[in-house]
Amino acid sequence: MSLIVQKFGGSSVANPERIKRVAQRVASYQKAGHSLVVVVSALGDTTDDLLELADKISKNPSSRELDMLLSTGEQISVALLAMALQELGVDAISFTGYQVGIRTDSTHTKARIIDISSDRIIRELKNKKTIIVAGFQGTNKNQDITTLGRGGSDLTAVALAKALKADTCEIYTDVDGIYTTDPRLVHDAQKIERISYEEMLELASSGAQVMQSRSIEVAGKYNIPLHVRSSFSTNEGTWIVKEDKSMEDVLIRGVSVSKNEAKITVSGVPNKPGIAGKIFRTLSDAGINVDVIIQNIGKAVSTDISFTVPRNEADTAVTLLKKVADESGIKEVTKDPHIAKVSVVGIGMRSHAGVAAKMFEILGKNRINIEMISTSEIKISCVVKLASADKAVKLLHQEFELNKKKK
Amino acid sequence: MSLIVQKFGGSSVANPERIKRVAQRVASYQKAGHSLVVVVSALGDTTDDLLELADKISKNPSSRELDMLLSTGEQISVALLAMALQELGVDAISFTGYQVGIRTDSTHTKARIIDISSDRIIRELKNKKTIIVAGFQGTNKNQDITTLGRGGSDLTAVALAKALKADTCEIYTDVDGIYTTDPRLVHDAQKIERISYEEMLELASSGAQVMQSRSIEVAGKYNIPLHVRSSFSTNEGTWIVKEDKSMEDVLIRGVSVSKNEAKITVSGVPNKPGIAGKIFRTLSDAGINVDVIIQNIGKAVSTDISFTVPRNEADTAVTLLKKVADESGIKEVTKDPHIAKVSVVGIGMRSHAGVAAKMFEILGKNRINIEMISTSEIKISCVVKLASADKAVKLLHQEFELNKKKK
Repeated sequence: MSLIVQKFGGSSVANPERIKRVAQRVASYQKAGHSLVVVVSALGDTTDDLLELADKISKNPSSRELDMLLSTGEQISVALLAMALQELGVDAISFTGYQVGIRTDSTHTKARIIDISSDRIIRELKNKKTIIVAGFQGTNKNQDITTLGRGGSDLTAVALAKALKADTCEIYTDVDGIYTTDPRLVHDAQKIERISYEEMLELASSGAQVMQSRSIEVAGKYNIPLHVRSSFSTNEGTWIVKEDKSMEDVLIRGVSVSKNEAKITVSGVPNKPGIAGKIFRTLSDAGINVDVIIQNIGKAVSTDISFTVPRNEADTAVTLLKKVADESGIKEVTKDPHIAKVSVVGIGMRSHAGVAAKMFEILGKNRINIEMISTSEIKISCVVKLASADKAVKLLHQEFELNKKKK
Repeated sequence: MSLIVQKFGGSSVANPERIKRVAQRVASYQKAGHSLVVVVSALGDTTDDLLELADKISKNPSSRELDMLLSTGEQISVALLAMALQELGVDAISFTGYQVGIRTDSTHTKARIIDISSDRIIRELKNKKTIIVAGFQGTNKNQDITTLGRGGSDLTAVALAKALKADTCEIYTDVDGIYTTDPRLVHDAQKIERISYEEMLELASSGAQVMQSRSIEVAGKYNIPLHVRSSFSTNEGTWIVKEDKSMEDVLIRGVSVSKNEAKITVSGVPNKPGIAGKIFRTLSDAGINVDVIIQNIGKAVSTDISFTVPRNEADTAVTLLKKVADESGIKEVTKDPHIAKVSVVGIGMRSHAGVAAKMFEILGKNRINIEMISTSEIKISCVVKLASADKAVKLLHQEFELNKKKK
């Protein structure tokens, strides 16, 4: 008999039929004797519908009012799921983020959870209730409603699992686990049975979109086992757990690709101190995240700097940097939106040399030009032409033998 | 410079265009220097849409979860209206019932307001904010969300007006005031300029559906002037105020009709003590409201009792009473759904004799049979055949000279 936190995403509760199906699954756990805290996202397209409504009224609505508006989506879901469970004879009770004491800072639309005062949930669990909690939301110290940003319901689930010392946290989604690469692209991609928090974080930040990065980070920090699985089947999914010895035997856990970046090149940067600092300070002040950075020392008096930014912010970045260029004697700022970042991830590469060399050889042998490289302890990323990206993923997946079933 | 509470009903905020129009009106008051607290209902059909969603999941949802669900409707409205006001440069801020401290009892779906702790509103008014409050909702002592029942946003507005000692409470609706009778039925019905709380209460409870009765009651108790007016024009509407001397000069203020009742007749009731008590106890236990009651002492050993109930509860009433009949030796229970209740209302009748006689004469002369009569100090109601109801209203409206413009 354990305490389980379950999180169901928007596609799992897209309509009344699916809500009933989720209720059946929750009920089966409850009937098996488990205590349950269920976190739910907004029904299917609700959030988009609400944003559309707001857009008809204001092109630039205040973030406080946006949070007030969007948080209703999850509130609708929890009420409906509680009703569906009650229909099945389960004593369910729904709560908003506020009601279960999810306190956040005041950064509306992407607030951070500060604290959860879980008294109410604990009391209701003692009353044998099945708890349904609205994901994605909390309140700040003024009781203003805040939301946690994209994927915020994952974070609600993980934070509750931590606060309640839950045994497991199950993340239900429309895929049945984490794959060695995107199965829509590579048909013999394999479902991963167990993956470490670190590997999952690297995969998530390099293109795999199954879970929100911050929630993996928090789960890892507090060692909360996550089970990512499908809400449409009862198959085991993927466990995201603390790294153990056996995981090191696997050289590469997965291959990911990100197609949402553009490359910016700043050429003819005078070889004087402070100019690179000025470039990245300008971008950081504008809230633009810079990813891979390389610098080519070309000539004695000047150098070229290239880096990637989210593609939808590339134009802003170029505009801003052209101003810097004018002031600093930089020759040229150009962008290339037709790039992709292909990464291989695995904690095995810590103890096995030659992974990078093998990756470069595979790409080179197949005439895929590597434009930029960046590495972490357990990840190697190569920026390639967008047109070669899918081919690169397929080759890497095959050559690193990820298509073979692991024990 | 005064503090004004304004309430906008669902039809006034049915879509983004109308929300913008409401925002313009609110902004014009704000720019004229008034302090404003604006109460809003759910957008047009939102509540019905949410009920339909719930109905697909449960035929008999728990009232706590229903309140959790329905309260989102008003939350959406306040966020959107605040955004629309901000677009117009007004410093608006939206609140849920909880956030402005509207505390209720725990009678979900028809909770009563116990208290308003208005600190937050007062603080924000001092900050020169325009306050937007979700109508129809509050929370009980456990922080569970409650709703106030049909017309509950009126009550929110009146209760806030009381708590904040507002100068006026404006109720915006899709009609431009209270009329001497339904203008769709009688084309020369006149808009009433001023009406007393008591008269308005009697009109509301006898068929006029402009405002919720409880909110009129509360306004009367605390002497809060209500101004019922159209959100589609700037014309003065109807003021609902404390009775004054001049109002007594008007014999009849208005004629109302209720077509939602059915007549139940229990015949051959043995002339023994306790049987009438049993009849009405049975109905009251089933939550069925009984209105007009008459008892005909027919023969020595038995009597007939007739009364009206809401038409949609007539079948339940008959079923319940047939059981009572079997146990108590009552001969027969019958219903007549084809009736209507026509009422004349006016505080003038307190000091002017003969109003009842005149009403009966008018109906009698026109061969409209009166089936039942009930009176209060300022109202006379006659139950007539449904088919004669409209004719009765027209005749009474004309004969009591309500079609003539009052000063």
